[in-house]
Amino acid sequence: MDTLTPVSACRYITSIHLTTTQPTEFIDLTERVQQLIARAELRFGIVNVQTLHTTTAVVVNEHEPLLLADFQSLLEAAAPSDGRYQHDDTSARTVNLTDAERPNGHAHCRALLLPASVCLTVTSGRLLLGRWQRVFFVELDGPRERDVSVLIFGEAAR
Amino acid sequence: MDTLTPVSACRYITSIHLTTTQPTEFIDLTERVQQLIARAELRFGIVNVQTLHTTTAVVVNEHEPLLLADFQSLLEAAAPSDGRYQHDDTSARTVNLTDAERPNGHAHCRALLLPASVCLTVTSGRLLLGRWQRVFFVELDGPRERDVSVLIFGEAAR
Amino acid sequence: MDTLTPVSACRYITSIHLTTTQPTEFIDLTERVQQLIARAELRFGIVNVQTLHTTTAVVVNEHEPLLLADFQSLLEAAAPSDGRYQHDDTSARTVNLTDAERPNGHAHCRALLLPASVCLTVTSGRLLLGRWQRVFFVELDGPRERDVSVLIFGEAAR
Repeated sequence: MDTLTPVSACRYITSIHLTTTQPTEFIDLTERVQQLIARAELRFGIVNVQTLHTTTAVVVNEHEPLLLADFQSLLEAAAPSDGRYQHDDTSARTVNLTDAERPNGHAHCRALLLPASVCLTVTSGRLLLGRWQRVFFVELDGPRERDVSVLIFGEAAR
Repeated sequence: MDTLTPVSACRYITSIHLTTTQPTEFIDLTERVQQLIARAELRFGIVNVQTLHTTTAVVVNEHEPLLLADFQSLLEAAAPSDGRYQHDDTSARTVNLTDAERPNGHAHCRALLLPASVCLTVTSGRLLLGRWQRVFFVELDGPRERDVSVLIFGEAAR
Repeated sequence: MDTLTPVSACRYITSIHLTTTQPTEFIDLTERVQQLIARAELRFGIVNVQTLHTTTAVVVNEHEPLLLADFQSLLEAAAPSDGRYQHDDTSARTVNLTDAERPNGHAHCRALLLPASVCLTVTSGRLLLGRWQRVFFVELDGPRERDVSVLIFGEAAR
């Protein structure tokens, strides 16, 4: 347990652009976030990884392909893609309708059950993660063009 | 991608009082949080929006009324309001009993599945949100008097 | 509503070691986190409580034993411990296999539905929590040895 002596502030905001290719997809952002922390020269602080969409999420879990398939089954059970969603009834809806409207009530419902942002600890210039922890962007209504913001905030390495 | 030069620290803590009117209710806090950021004169940093109750949540999703009805159905399916909850068995309970006790095990269970706080990025003096993203306080056991804390933290505009 | 005058930075990172004794277990960390805030002499800022495991979570809810039993029933319904998970099929898996492998797909799925970290507000040297709010580490695949990181970050008391 150490009390940290502040050196100088580090504030860095950027975003990661992603092109998803599947309706549901888990994209491992861990290395990209780690590289941004290194580039920002953050030593101690937080990184806030926040999706900019309402049918996506940011989660931390293990990167094991069969487990990611289990997650997809879990989300399908929680909010089935063939379920009935009032949001998809464009004859009844009057709000936020666009030309590109597509039925995605299930994706919003899945997003409600998952975090929109994850705040993670940075120490000694590295994301503090356990052995199996990886940071994922979760696409729930793909394929789409997506953006995730990354705020890096704390004490600079020099 | 910009490295931000620190100017001066901005630390601001306040709360928003809400009177909810429905058992389940989504209250859009986006404009109120944005106004608090402007009043605090935060340029870059984070805003942490945290509920102070255990049968409520703070979420980010789209503000479309039919979608909010879908969310209510999702929560009802996950933890039915007429389900059996040991928490509601006041004959068996010995802990945290009050005169104002009412059956709300379903509301606690729904709250467990949703975030108690959301940490969001602020840049150029504005909440960084995607096109459809809005910040909601979620009442799960209303109507009630409620409070949400808002911590604004980072680099001042001047 | 107060604008806070910065005094000096407080940055403190530590971890809490836990030995869990049950498959599912809610361990109340509130006092321990509060003691760490006091030891770090943080006056205003945030505390980020982050688990370092992928079959665990950090949540905020009420500490009432029968309610914690309800939470366990909710998680069992969401991802049954006797369900079929591809992650548990060691004949098919090729990734992240260890000698200590045990079937825990249900625990990962439950962890997906709960937060890996919680960012909470600190003001006047105290965790800002509502009357019933407590911070819990959630074991979903115990008994195990576990670690939770605690980042304390903001303005020092002196």
